[in-house]
Amino acid sequence: MDNTKQLTAKILFDLFTQQLGRSNKLIDSFTDEQLANEVSPGRNTGIYLLGHLTAVHDAMLPLLGFGETQHPELVEIFIKNPDKSGIAKPSAAKIREDWKQVNSTLVAKLTALTPDQWFERHTSVSEEDFQKEPHCNRLNVVAGRTTHMTYHVGQMALLSK
Amino acid sequence: MDNTKQLTAKILFDLFTQQLGRSNKLIDSFTDEQLANEVSPGRNTGIYLLGHLTAVHDAMLPLLGFGETQHPELVEIFIKNPDKSGIAKPSAAKIREDWKQVNSTLVAKLTALTPDQWFERHTSVSEEDFQKEPHCNRLNVVAGRTTHMTYHVGQMALLSK
Repeated sequence: MDNTKQLTAKILFDLFTQQLGRSNKLIDSFTDEQLANEVSPGRNTGIYLLGHLTAVHDAMLPLLGFGETQHPELVEIFIKNPDKSGIAKPSAAKIREDWKQVNSTLVAKLTALTPDQWFERHTSVSEEDFQKEPHCNRLNVVAGRTTHMTYHVGQMALLSK
Repeated sequence: MDNTKQLTAKILFDLFTQQLGRSNKLIDSFTDEQLANEVSPGRNTGIYLLGHLTAVHDAMLPLLGFGETQHPELVEIFIKNPDKSGIAKPSAAKIREDWKQVNSTLVAKLTALTPDQWFERHTSVSEEDFQKEPHCNRLNVVAGRTTHMTYHVGQMALLSK
């Protein structure tokens, strides 16, 4: 049992951190001016997408039972509202910093999980429902957020050159 | 043992088919003219990205031990060469058809796998190396290809409107 759990947790953890590493390499290669550009005319800017990813990864902390969100102010700006809402955004430097910090916390917490803990419920499902839906676990959250990240990082890649 | 394998296989299978469903909804919403557009000025066209995804998913068939590739001609056009290579591309209708057909085969084969078979080696790792690297299994291939798909579908989403 533990062997399969360990193996699976490794696969999903490695996928998440590998994609995160690639994302950071790309994001770090951009100047703040590049990040301020739209990924395609009339579409989201790089800075909005980075803020959006930061808010979504921040929300993984309570969802995974790792504590409170660290940047709740990002939800209004980067999840509830679109890029051109007129709401003032934090500076690129601040969003870059929040992004790094949130992921650093996430990776540390994920690293500390035992294989069994990867298969425990995430916090948006009740104990009762989890008995019927055992796939609502931490593993599933990490897998889903990894595809969310690659979806938007594919868009941010269009800012290069 | 089987219970964890079954659960994990379900999580990864559901993620793949869910993302595939979303991708198809998006792709089906595009006219052939939209697909011929670049996702951002000077970048790949939708049709190139769809051909690329088709070639990569076709290559999953031998990698997962599901038989030969069905459209080997796509490799030269959509993997080995960039969009503006000058090499003639199949029509949008043909690429759409190949995409649907390859995924239909893939999903049927994945559906037929037992939980144990999800944890068997993929064909690009030898039996010997698999003993040392048990994460080189079918599950890992499907997880990695799911993030590859969402990366490019995020780009294709920019063709909408």
